[in-house]
Amino acid sequence: MRNVDANTLTNAVIRSFDGAADPRLREIIASLVSHLHDFAREVKLTPEEWQAGIAFMHHAAKITNESRSEFVLTSDVLGLSSLVDLIASSGGTERSALGPFHAEGSPLLAVGGDLKKDNDGEAMLVQGRVLDSAGRPVARAQLDFWQAAINGKYWQQDPEQSPDNLRFRMITGDDGEYAFTTVRPAPYTVPYDGPVGDLLRAGGRHAWRPAHFHFIVSAPGHHALTTEVFFADDPYIDEDAVFGVRESLLTQITSDNDASLAQKHGLNTPYPSVRFDFRLAAATPARG
Amino acid sequence: MRNVDANTLTNAVIRSFDGAADPRLREIIASLVSHLHDFAREVKLTPEEWQAGIAFMHHAAKITNESRSEFVLTSDVLGLSSLVDLIASSGGTERSALGPFHAEGSPLLAVGGDLKKDNDGEAMLVQGRVLDSAGRPVARAQLDFWQAAINGKYWQQDPEQSPDNLRFRMITGDDGEYAFTTVRPAPYTVPYDGPVGDLLRAGGRHAWRPAHFHFIVSAPGHHALTTEVFFADDPYIDEDAVFGVRESLLTQITSDNDASLAQKHGLNTPYPSVRFDFRLAAATPARG
Repeated sequence: MRNVDANTLTNAVIRSFDGAADPRLREIIASLVSHLHDFAREVKLTPEEWQAGIAFMHHAAKITNESRSEFVLTSDVLGLSSLVDLIASSGGTERSALGPFHAEGSPLLAVGGDLKKDNDGEAMLVQGRVLDSAGRPVARAQLDFWQAAINGKYWQQDPEQSPDNLRFRMITGDDGEYAFTTVRPAPYTVPYDGPVGDLLRAGGRHAWRPAHFHFIVSAPGHHALTTEVFFADDPYIDEDAVFGVRESLLTQITSDNDASLAQKHGLNTPYPSVRFDFRLAAATPARG
Repeated sequence: MRNVDANTLTNAVIRSFDGAADPRLREIIASLVSHLHDFAREVKLTPEEWQAGIAFMHHAAKITNESRSEFVLTSDVLGLSSLVDLIASSGGTERSALGPFHAEGSPLLAVGGDLKKDNDGEAMLVQGRVLDSAGRPVARAQLDFWQAAINGKYWQQDPEQSPDNLRFRMITGDDGEYAFTTVRPAPYTVPYDGPVGDLLRAGGRHAWRPAHFHFIVSAPGHHALTTEVFFADDPYIDEDAVFGVRESLLTQITSDNDASLAQKHGLNTPYPSVRFDFRLAAATPARG
């Protein structure tokens, strides 16, 4: 090892992990080391630039806490989180960002329930079905839902919101249907007062995300699906700061006039409405 | 951007930085994103593995403070810090790790001064010259030196040591000579109670570094040199946990009998002695 140079070092580092008990760890580390070293060689990374990278991490460490992760955000704005979702997508609805604001234990809401309560903003109906890969309804699937308020903030970021605001869990009926009323969310910026914000500014980039709903849809026998649902007319739909948008996750807002539905959901006619169906991939390959 | 897939996403991310004012930033980010994405695709990184990586960063963030950087240590044990040093080496003495224990403002020590004071351990003489790339002595070069005590700890890690223990700055005379007496350092482990320790254990690796001295050697008109000096007979010389060892940075300890030198430095004969000459590369190319 005493004779390493800028090319042979990489193999020496990879070989140092030869004793790893887990072959998957060895595979991941070997690939990570190989690509990180290729990067440093390709750009001839200088000690000063390396130190700037370390300073970025130290700054990120300082502002990361239980309700804010600058490391997840770094991964997001470099497209790595999105890439992992794209790699994992396998037959069902496409995956998209979990983001940092999911919380366990959201209150249960019955199908057709109201989530908007006293939130400001445009009331809308959201409905659809949970289907399996063959297009059949999935009974008793769980939707775990969360969204930002009209001010672009989640309850964790906003002392004015109760901890249960704008989030729920819902169990579909035998027909796989879900429905709820809520307020239309607004585009918002990811936090840009930290090193990621510095990077975005230096890169000539903005921090905006198009408005979206978050869902985790799960059911026994199926892969859990973490995804987002967007609005096709959003001004930021083609420049999401975290690369979460997929064509297949866009909805069109329609203006609906169903008087009985409106009455049932406490809406005035016409009311804005979106429909989105989720498809869950089977956890084990389906048999012919 | 709404039509990205696991292959086209990479270019979309790189293009998002097209507005960067600094072309070097654009170059570095493009290469980093490209290699990070190649890594994720190559190993088909799963969302669970990505979350384990994020958890590693969060754990690192929690234990990083002014006197301990788990991020530098991560870079060290993956050979990235060492690679950056190897890339930067250009003609003079090879560079090696700065490590996390350099502190500004070390006390000045005259050439030939004593650093061991009341430290436990084997007293030894360390001497040599600072030379330019043509082998001529560099007058009034500065050596900034630090080392661990015999217990393997730097003063920052050990409340028993005074903040000025085992570190100094020294200015060479017209002959480029430096000399001091100190105690022979011992091998020690890098901190392994954090996520890097978990990684080393999972990788079947130990945390030991061979014993070493740290130097930053600088002089007007020359590139500052950050490096380490090792002992050829060290048991860990070929398995440094942070890949800092270079053949050219090894010294042989000799047993010397120069009675007048011994008296001058307060040593008994025979005394252990090492000699190491530094070569500084010119900051601007030398002219024929």
